[in-house]
Amino acid sequence: MRSERPPLRLALAGFGTVGMGLADILEQNREKLTARAGREIRIHSVLVRDQAKARTRPLPSGARLCADVSELVQDARVDVVVELMGGLEMPRRLIRAALEAGKHVVTANKALLAEEGEEIFRLAGQHGLHLGYEASVCGGVPVIQVLREGLAANKILALAGILNGTCNYILSSMSGEGLSFEAALKRAQSLGLAEADPSLDIEGWDSAHKLALLIRLAWGINYPFKHMPVTGITRVTPEDIRFAGEFGCNIKLLGQAALTEDRQSGRTRLDAWVFPSLVPESNPLSQVGQAYNALRVEGNAVGAVFLHGLGAGGPPTGSAVAADLLRIALGTGPHNTGYAGSGRADLEIMPPLESASGYYFRLTVPDRAGVLKVVAAAMAEQQISVAQVIQKSQRGGGVVPLVIMTHQTTARAVEAALAGLKSSGILTEAPVYYKVLAAGGE
Amino acid sequence: MRSERPPLRLALAGFGTVGMGLADILEQNREKLTARAGREIRIHSVLVRDQAKARTRPLPSGARLCADVSELVQDARVDVVVELMGGLEMPRRLIRAALEAGKHVVTANKALLAEEGEEIFRLAGQHGLHLGYEASVCGGVPVIQVLREGLAANKILALAGILNGTCNYILSSMSGEGLSFEAALKRAQSLGLAEADPSLDIEGWDSAHKLALLIRLAWGINYPFKHMPVTGITRVTPEDIRFAGEFGCNIKLLGQAALTEDRQSGRTRLDAWVFPSLVPESNPLSQVGQAYNALRVEGNAVGAVFLHGLGAGGPPTGSAVAADLLRIALGTGPHNTGYAGSGRADLEIMPPLESASGYYFRLTVPDRAGVLKVVAAAMAEQQISVAQVIQKSQRGGGVVPLVIMTHQTTARAVEAALAGLKSSGILTEAPVYYKVLAAGGE
Repeated sequence: MRSERPPLRLALAGFGTVGMGLADILEQNREKLTARAGREIRIHSVLVRDQAKARTRPLPSGARLCADVSELVQDARVDVVVELMGGLEMPRRLIRAALEAGKHVVTANKALLAEEGEEIFRLAGQHGLHLGYEASVCGGVPVIQVLREGLAANKILALAGILNGTCNYILSSMSGEGLSFEAALKRAQSLGLAEADPSLDIEGWDSAHKLALLIRLAWGINYPFKHMPVTGITRVTPEDIRFAGEFGCNIKLLGQAALTEDRQSGRTRLDAWVFPSLVPESNPLSQVGQAYNALRVEGNAVGAVFLHGLGAGGPPTGSAVAADLLRIALGTGPHNTGYAGSGRADLEIMPPLESASGYYFRLTVPDRAGVLKVVAAAMAEQQISVAQVIQKSQRGGGVVPLVIMTHQTTARAVEAALAGLKSSGILTEAPVYYKVLAAGGE
Repeated sequence: MRSERPPLRLALAGFGTVGMGLADILEQNREKLTARAGREIRIHSVLVRDQAKARTRPLPSGARLCADVSELVQDARVDVVVELMGGLEMPRRLIRAALEAGKHVVTANKALLAEEGEEIFRLAGQHGLHLGYEASVCGGVPVIQVLREGLAANKILALAGILNGTCNYILSSMSGEGLSFEAALKRAQSLGLAEADPSLDIEGWDSAHKLALLIRLAWGINYPFKHMPVTGITRVTPEDIRFAGEFGCNIKLLGQAALTEDRQSGRTRLDAWVFPSLVPESNPLSQVGQAYNALRVEGNAVGAVFLHGLGAGGPPTGSAVAADLLRIALGTGPHNTGYAGSGRADLEIMPPLESASGYYFRLTVPDRAGVLKVVAAAMAEQQISVAQVIQKSQRGGGVVPLVIMTHQTTARAVEAALAGLKSSGILTEAPVYYKVLAAGGE
């Protein structure tokens, strides 16, 4: 089914894993894509930072190599600029220039959209252009579209997701094979699942970027990203994973955002955070292994919907980019998908210290009588109700881990209790603490 | 954010569970829907078969009651006809009349679309009208949109789903509480999860209807529905569920469609069926409980994507109807979503007898020596390779179950082996057999 419509011409900025994955999809699935789009989708030009770099894949046939943003953007034959470079500086310049030159944009750049999305969405809206970013969250799993359209008739009550495949791979390897964090990270790096500088992933910032994008879709607000409470996985130990197992839980790096009613003011608050979390085995998020991503969305009509799939890698992420391109080729779908400014004006952001949850603490303390009493007193002083304690003496004395699971309490109480414990002098190492998800249905 | 655009006016045919669920959503989420659609979505008229019937919910305020299809369809103020009546005869008449009168249509009627979709999709396409049917498969989980758009850049390799909430509820209750099929069905009926006449669900036809719709989206072909191999769950016993557990599996009613290469002809074949299946516990489909639905889609770029949520009930199904309405209100999205006629002309339908899989047999045989030899010979004669056998003598002699798990074999070999066993005279009851899914990753 060939059509008379002219091809959709792409300028592809970045020809790394995702760019090559996209080129493969456009080539291998050309027939289906052309039939669905009613026109060909063709890579017209490719921008690379380093033209001399060796690549595992040749440039798409017929594509021109290009080393300059303005050359790329000024080319009148280009319909869509596909930004797959990563980073902030050059993508920002490219995306703005593309929108101002009347080109549609597709990007996988969650960092840029989370931190500066408001302005970029506004620019796209002003010019009546598509700004597709399906690839920026959960790779090939179309969570952006599901939130924006499939569940759009719902008031969203909560989102919880495993949004970073690198962290999930590391935690799964630690859990399945007892690896240390360092060994698991090293293996992830050797498999190409973690960057040479992995801090954006393992410190939780990548998950936070993605969560901010999901919040914008779910509630139409620009979340004040810099104030989101974010804790990464660098301090999780195999011991933590074993203790979690004793409580019937797996440890996952979760991004969560949920509405809660403030009893005093009667106002609705949005509580959002990224935190290592003990997830009960009955929760489907607990079973998400390897480098998979998953998202649980709770809507007031639909109940809980759960989506799961590969969150990274060239072909899955390329699949999401290509879905956006198909939509642009068809000329369907809303242009500006960020809902900037259309949000719930009544929504308050939960002050991080007031965020409530159950907590897991692992304290390192001297192996001697009376220590538990000191710890219990510090908790009680902050009205923290202890649910379970594990204290195991080790052969040889010295220091031991003391593990505590609490009932629901606030971050403020946790910080105060830890300050009390530090000043008591019984902690021989900095304490670690994670959130605990309540056991629940599907 | 109010808009100057006129409201989108609905004629709602059917005011049962789903119709009332939709009315609730349009009322409770009115503000968000109006903001997203840029116009109000309003129920203008309601058609009910029995005007005297007592209802748990009043009609939407301002809606006119209407008892006649032509009155409903001829009303020039109606933009969209929403068909939520069920059945075939009246919906067929209504949907055709609506499309011919230039109204968009939204329906949850999988039976009609599976059996007569080709003509209805063509009619919608001819008139340039929307035909929304997100609510017809997996209730609130937007699987139609995900297949049609989110994963549209993929060649779909396989689909496997738990597509009927009634059956999944029954099997989960049998598994969790050891109930008999009859007791579990009775409870499902008392909870409103099964119809008074449950045959469409428990015989597998409802799952088959949904699978036919998914096949159309995935491969663009009109599957010859009447030839699909379909087996329901009426013969599954608590004993089967226990045996499955010994093999590390749960029994689920699966609908599956997968491409396979025929080695002899070199052609690609589509193998589709609905069958009770032993699903290994490592497969996420195995963990889907209660009345939940789930779908696993495998694409050549994205890998496996898994979706999970409530497949029935007023609010979840209403959520899917409302998502279609939002799209119509925005004027976005492809009109004719059935891809009738745009399909893969090269695809052969797998002749049911050549379909290959592992099988589980439960044979009822006399509890005496030599029986296993007869059974093994019947299997061997058809080149069926036996993987495992469970034979448990019961106190008191008489008859016992003999359970066999096979390696990959064809339906033809299974039928021949069973014919051989029947003629041998050792079966004291009709045999039961289910498919076995291979253990695999996520």
